[in-house]
Amino acid sequence: MHFSVIFRVLGVLLMIFSLTLLPPFALSLWLNDDHHHAFLIAFAITFATGLGIWLPVHRARHDLQTRDGFLITALFWSVLGLFGSLPFYISAELDASFTDALFESISGLTTTGATVFTGLDFLPKSILYYRQQLQWLGGIGIIVIAVAILPMLGIGGMQLYRAETPGPVKDSKLTPRITETAKALFFMYVALTLLCALAYWLGGMSGFDAICHAFSTVAIGGFSTHDASIGFFNSPVIMAICTFFMFFSGINFALHFFGWREHSIRQYLKDPECRFYSAWILVGALITITYLYFTGTYGFFDSLMHGSFEFVSVLTTTGFGTADFSAWPTFLPFMLFLFAFMGGCGGSTAGGMKVMRVMLICKQGYREIKRLIHPSAIIPIKVGKKSVPDRVVEAVWGFFAVYIISFMVMFLLLLATGLDFVTSFSAVGASINNLGPGMGDVAAHYGNINDPAKWILCFAMLLGRLEVFTLLVLFTPMFWRR
Amino acid sequence: MHFSVIFRVLGVLLMIFSLTLLPPFALSLWLNDDHHHAFLIAFAITFATGLGIWLPVHRARHDLQTRDGFLITALFWSVLGLFGSLPFYISAELDASFTDALFESISGLTTTGATVFTGLDFLPKSILYYRQQLQWLGGIGIIVIAVAILPMLGIGGMQLYRAETPGPVKDSKLTPRITETAKALFFMYVALTLLCALAYWLGGMSGFDAICHAFSTVAIGGFSTHDASIGFFNSPVIMAICTFFMFFSGINFALHFFGWREHSIRQYLKDPECRFYSAWILVGALITITYLYFTGTYGFFDSLMHGSFEFVSVLTTTGFGTADFSAWPTFLPFMLFLFAFMGGCGGSTAGGMKVMRVMLICKQGYREIKRLIHPSAIIPIKVGKKSVPDRVVEAVWGFFAVYIISFMVMFLLLLATGLDFVTSFSAVGASINNLGPGMGDVAAHYGNINDPAKWILCFAMLLGRLEVFTLLVLFTPMFWRR
Ligand SMILES: [K+]
Ligand SMILES: [K+]
Repeated sequence: MHFSVIFRVLGVLLMIFSLTLLPPFALSLWLNDDHHHAFLIAFAITFATGLGIWLPVHRARHDLQTRDGFLITALFWSVLGLFGSLPFYISAELDASFTDALFESISGLTTTGATVFTGLDFLPKSILYYRQQLQWLGGIGIIVIAVAILPMLGIGGMQLYRAETPGPVKDSKLTPRITETAKALFFMYVALTLLCALAYWLGGMSGFDAICHAFSTVAIGGFSTHDASIGFFNSPVIMAICTFFMFFSGINFALHFFGWREHSIRQYLKDPECRFYSAWILVGALITITYLYFTGTYGFFDSLMHGSFEFVSVLTTTGFGTADFSAWPTFLPFMLFLFAFMGGCGGSTAGGMKVMRVMLICKQGYREIKRLIHPSAIIPIKVGKKSVPDRVVEAVWGFFAVYIISFMVMFLLLLATGLDFVTSFSAVGASINNLGPGMGDVAAHYGNINDPAKWILCFAMLLGRLEVFTLLVLFTPMFWRR
Repeated sequence: MHFSVIFRVLGVLLMIFSLTLLPPFALSLWLNDDHHHAFLIAFAITFATGLGIWLPVHRARHDLQTRDGFLITALFWSVLGLFGSLPFYISAELDASFTDALFESISGLTTTGATVFTGLDFLPKSILYYRQQLQWLGGIGIIVIAVAILPMLGIGGMQLYRAETPGPVKDSKLTPRITETAKALFFMYVALTLLCALAYWLGGMSGFDAICHAFSTVAIGGFSTHDASIGFFNSPVIMAICTFFMFFSGINFALHFFGWREHSIRQYLKDPECRFYSAWILVGALITITYLYFTGTYGFFDSLMHGSFEFVSVLTTTGFGTADFSAWPTFLPFMLFLFAFMGGCGGSTAGGMKVMRVMLICKQGYREIKRLIHPSAIIPIKVGKKSVPDRVVEAVWGFFAVYIISFMVMFLLLLATGLDFVTSFSAVGASINNLGPGMGDVAAHYGNINDPAKWILCFAMLLGRLEVFTLLVLFTPMFWRR
């Protein structure tokens, strides 16, 4: 481990992050909403800490190794999550406990979108803007880390993406190619956000709401500036725009990059993960719409709109709402919820286990059945035309098992804090999948549950965002041994 | 596929099974409880059908192949389940619908122990005896099939047991060695049942209850002759006896065979699966007892007795009860329930995924973490001193994934029939793990849920008992192709 380099990276990260506190500060001054001091203090603390960490080691030069990659990735969300909570904690109007401030910040940065605050419509605009921006920043982190760093770490079969990123990472060192890759993806991310904001604005949102919701849509975050979420606008046009951008943001950003460079949708059409994802969106939305219609929950048009919106929102793990979906006939909320375990494509801002892994698990389950009938046949697993190496297959199994086991353990812990079954089940599911809204006591917000539960859920959000292994590996003595 | 031989085996099975209707028939005559006609009619139908199937093909001679093994195993429980329901269906006093009769019969034979009948204490003794005997017969089937046939089929990594069964099966044909193996195991099973019955009788049960409960204990079945289950006897001695025999029956019967042959417990102590199983029983029971005591649910002695009894009962998937465990502080029922997904050791009568598989999954999860830190290291998975072949490792992953996915699908289907969350979750869990009692509306019995739900649960019980793949494989066109 090269701690000097890790500290250098961390120091720079904190200083960059501190700069992101200036836009809400400026907004607060401009709107005169009396919150600029919170952002100023948070900026000063964050910048000073970053500088203090960076200065002693700013001359350190080492190539980063795989092991450093794990630590940096884990620190990215946990340390930024900590400092990101400062404005919430300092704000007198929010009157948030440390736990609540941290929960909101981690929920924002991990793009989970679970909130402990209510009465959003009456909060200062600068705070609202800051929450949305947190998600957007978290989204950048995911895109860059998922495409540039995670494949190198080889977590849960994500080596598969290695050859498919614009700037391939061929060895285990962080090369300058990553900077290129990151730049290209950052550009795509910004472009998509602008496009989304423009569409929302044309669809009828105010400029402020359009930008704020574009932030949390492209980041698959799910924070809103209104308690009623997208339902506030009560507009089929905005719902349709939102559905489209949630769907689009759930696709691997490397594909967006190719599509943009080649001015064609060919790459989307031939990508097996993207096809699997689109197929399930179609099938699932159809089931949802049909069920809503035939149970008489809504008429045809509302079934169509709410059904497809909510299904895409939950499957992609965005977590926007237009209706109280936890009050739909019991089958539907849970079906949607189980799809959130799949989530969007790898290399997107979506949570969940990722489409690629679920696809591989299905293929392998089917191969096991084939093997029972033809025990001596050699049956390769293919994604598109490529055979998947056994090593990747095993890594995906491992990921699935550890994901499920982590879910179970945290579910039991939440029950032990005294929450009921549906609340515990859905809260852990919504957190580990970075989905956001749950059911039971956490259907509307997370403000009323106990503090230990909030801490467990913070851990769950980080665990999900860090693809489980990145975080778990830090808890093994092996990792810290030379 | 050699259908002539399969029919021959099926015919013989049915004729043998029909003979097992004679003891309850005799009991009914002796006690004069007015139910002998039900058993006589059932006997006649079953025997005649068996004979009718057997006669045309009784000269067929072929070596059975792997594929035939799947079909015979699946038919064993489904066809016997069907014919086993006859006495329930015919009985005028039970007044059972076809669905209820089939549910009870499949629940019995698969050793699940979920019941649709209430007021057991007032039912005719012959019917009660028949239910217990069904479980005992199912138990024999499991032992023989699990040790003699399943390893040959290579389901979910159970090839591991091949080398460890008393009469090893080295090729893919059913050799006469299997007959020896089966005889040895049958002997162990009978001996254990007699021992258990004797212990119960000395512990204070009536002779009838002692035999009946020995049947369902050794079979890890969980049927009782009383609504209050083991709680009826209100005796710490009987609870202790029951706990011991449930624990003991959850161990691979091949180990019992070795232990008996060598007059030593050496084999138990050095078997990795048995050690893992015992360790978790200790840890889990300790957690349960501690939690019960410190939440003030019981005093110390009752916490100790009920805690260890219920934990062993649920983990081994027996499903006997002494207390309304679904009313314990929420954390406990669900913790116990999740342990039922592990279940007992392979080659025992227990349900669940089996200890060996869970052990391999844990080892592999840990290996994945190791591999992240040392990407180029070759890390074998060991059970005891033996390395586990990659093929087995993959099969176990496949089993886990398909098990979890089957669970999810059936859980959603149950929700769609209108059952609530806790009921659906626990009913499917209790069925696929062959545990028996659930929570919510199925905490006491399964009599009040709708018919479609009962059919889904019948399928779940068969799926669990048939190690998922044996049944699923029959639904693939591939299986039926030449
Ligand atoms: K989200
Ligand atoms: K059972």
